[in-house]
Amino acid sequence: MRQVVVLGAGMTRFGKFREATLKSLGREAVEAALAAAGVDPGRVEAAYVSNAIAGLITGQEMIRGQVVLRAMGIGDVPVVNVENACASASTAFHLAWLAVASGLYDCTLALGVEKMTHADKRRTFQAIATALDVEALAAPAAPGAPGGAGESRSVFMDLYASRVRDYMARHGASKRHLALIASKNHRHASLNPYAQYREPLSVEAVLGTPVVVEPLTRAMCSPIGDGAAAAVLCAADTARRLTSEPVYVAASVLRSGKDRAAGEPSIVGRAARAAYEAAGVGPEDLGVLEVHDATAAGELFAYEDLALCGPGEAAGLLERGVTELGGSRPVNPSGGLECKGHPIGATGLAQIAELVWQLSGRAGGRQVPGARAALAQNAGGHLGGESAACCVTILTR
Amino acid sequence: MRQVVVLGAGMTRFGKFREATLKSLGREAVEAALAAAGVDPGRVEAAYVSNAIAGLITGQEMIRGQVVLRAMGIGDVPVVNVENACASASTAFHLAWLAVASGLYDCTLALGVEKMTHADKRRTFQAIATALDVEALAAPAAPGAPGGAGESRSVFMDLYASRVRDYMARHGASKRHLALIASKNHRHASLNPYAQYREPLSVEAVLGTPVVVEPLTRAMCSPIGDGAAAAVLCAADTARRLTSEPVYVAASVLRSGKDRAAGEPSIVGRAARAAYEAAGVGPEDLGVLEVHDATAAGELFAYEDLALCGPGEAAGLLERGVTELGGSRPVNPSGGLECKGHPIGATGLAQIAELVWQLSGRAGGRQVPGARAALAQNAGGHLGGESAACCVTILTR
Repeated sequence: MRQVVVLGAGMTRFGKFREATLKSLGREAVEAALAAAGVDPGRVEAAYVSNAIAGLITGQEMIRGQVVLRAMGIGDVPVVNVENACASASTAFHLAWLAVASGLYDCTLALGVEKMTHADKRRTFQAIATALDVEALAAPAAPGAPGGAGESRSVFMDLYASRVRDYMARHGASKRHLALIASKNHRHASLNPYAQYREPLSVEAVLGTPVVVEPLTRAMCSPIGDGAAAAVLCAADTARRLTSEPVYVAASVLRSGKDRAAGEPSIVGRAARAAYEAAGVGPEDLGVLEVHDATAAGELFAYEDLALCGPGEAAGLLERGVTELGGSRPVNPSGGLECKGHPIGATGLAQIAELVWQLSGRAGGRQVPGARAALAQNAGGHLGGESAACCVTILTR
Repeated sequence: MRQVVVLGAGMTRFGKFREATLKSLGREAVEAALAAAGVDPGRVEAAYVSNAIAGLITGQEMIRGQVVLRAMGIGDVPVVNVENACASASTAFHLAWLAVASGLYDCTLALGVEKMTHADKRRTFQAIATALDVEALAAPAAPGAPGGAGESRSVFMDLYASRVRDYMARHGASKRHLALIASKNHRHASLNPYAQYREPLSVEAVLGTPVVVEPLTRAMCSPIGDGAAAAVLCAADTARRLTSEPVYVAASVLRSGKDRAAGEPSIVGRAARAAYEAAGVGPEDLGVLEVHDATAAGELFAYEDLALCGPGEAAGLLERGVTELGGSRPVNPSGGLECKGHPIGATGLAQIAELVWQLSGRAGGRQVPGARAALAQNAGGHLGGESAACCVTILTR
């Protein structure tokens, strides 16, 4: 297959934007990506558009991508609408990559857009629950018990909490380690103008926010939000005529399956292994990462699953500050899902956008110096011990 | 890119199955496709699953494909969930084809599954309306005025009716020509055990069914229904070891854009031209076709758009019986969307299934003898003069 380059990426700020629509969010991200790529919309030959819950929030199903793109004057390119829960956007990126890598198209657009906020908060939580098997839920679309923060919580918080309690018992990690992650990500987000939360929070302050479900406090959990992110991809041959600093897609891997099976790496581990192999890049080569910290526990698990450290060593990694900006392996310089925000269908492409900016020296106050390889890990959906979707993308320059 | 083969295809009967679920429908189609392909589920490396309205009908969003496949024990393959209105299934097929053609996978599964029936009929019609820009509709999700048949009708019937009234005025075609199409398709469907309607209907009987919107009568319009269809694809090299009668994917083209622009072929015409070129096959080579007759008018337009005849010549084609079983260019031997049925997200793959059976001599009483090339045309969604998605697939043996 051909080498593929991310020619440009863009995103909206993430946040609760009651007045925003799929169209307004999508347009802002696509225009930013096209501007960064330095190409006209006419260059785009096909678009892969991800969105997870617009059908339930806005009533728009079936042709969400066309509706958004046509409103901004892009009406004559093939559009594929993609859903894969919280991994929707990296799935769209994967398809946009494959379309160019295969030689079918020379230039494609990947767009992820999500409007999560709704006047009726229950609607949002019901929509989030569709990333599970709704038929198998006792009460279909049950919003979960109210969390300590006076708001319904996603059913996914319970899954993370139960798994991390297990991990803590086995490896001696503590709630403080989760707070180290959340505090780090809040500090990173304070440097990111696109982030939903921009207030730094000390470890103590993180621990002092209301408990959502033990050991997770509110500041350790990703918020509800709206936003969009986009990337323009093209063949490396073409890219070399358009940019002097191409960012290559070294690997784009999509997996589903058992979270963990005895004697095997986790689903994230299996996807990462395949990506490292495809890219010819190891964890030791990574200058920067964006990982799926829907909760701080997700980032903790990612450290081991991505082989940044060995089993049980995540706490040590945190204590040494390895994954902070300034450390040797910065993770979630954007602030991650916890602080940059997590508009479901946009998240994966926002990770890609951050890494493209990091690799091309455009990450402003949160710039990691000299990174040559970067990894994004995005996960979505859950089915009784199985991950519905797990994407690992490796970018290099 | 590599040559790709459809190794096997399968489908459920289409119809109103109140007790059926996405899982039960999906399983039946996938098991049939795997059996026809003669391969174990373990051979499938990735799945592309289309569904259009389950979010609004069953409450399941985000990971519909995983939910269906995992319930039948296929839990460890990457799944991409695809939506493209009535062209969802051929979009899924397109992705499954590209994944193999590119060399990313050797064997993929495309599944289209739809549950349209709901105790509250309005829910179904509201869901269908999401194939338009719901924000732009005066009343979001307006179900349309009641049709003559005592049931709400899809907003799409109005679009077809207005366009065909125009065509009739320009080219001297009559309501009787539409009835010829519907009657032909009812006769074809009477030979198809998978069809929703299996009663033959004379031209007079078609004209005697209640008017939905002039000139379309009920028997000229596709019904609401449930169903699933699936195909197993693999690389031609592999296929040649598994079957002596490979059916090749000679072209798989997806387009969006203006329905008709002055001096240019229609969107279907543009997609067809690209497909003919890619396949090295012309309309004169086609032994059998399945086209998107959401109404009989759709089939009438397809004759010209696919260059089976020149502009204004569709009526003559019908009068000469060219597109009947027994004619030189049989169209919709399955009965088409009008009679086989049109469970939105399954339709495109049901077209593919019919053509695979036709090309491999497994079409029973509706077999077209000796066809070597076949074309499927599937369309979906509408946005003020633009088609959201149009797929043309050419299969050869």
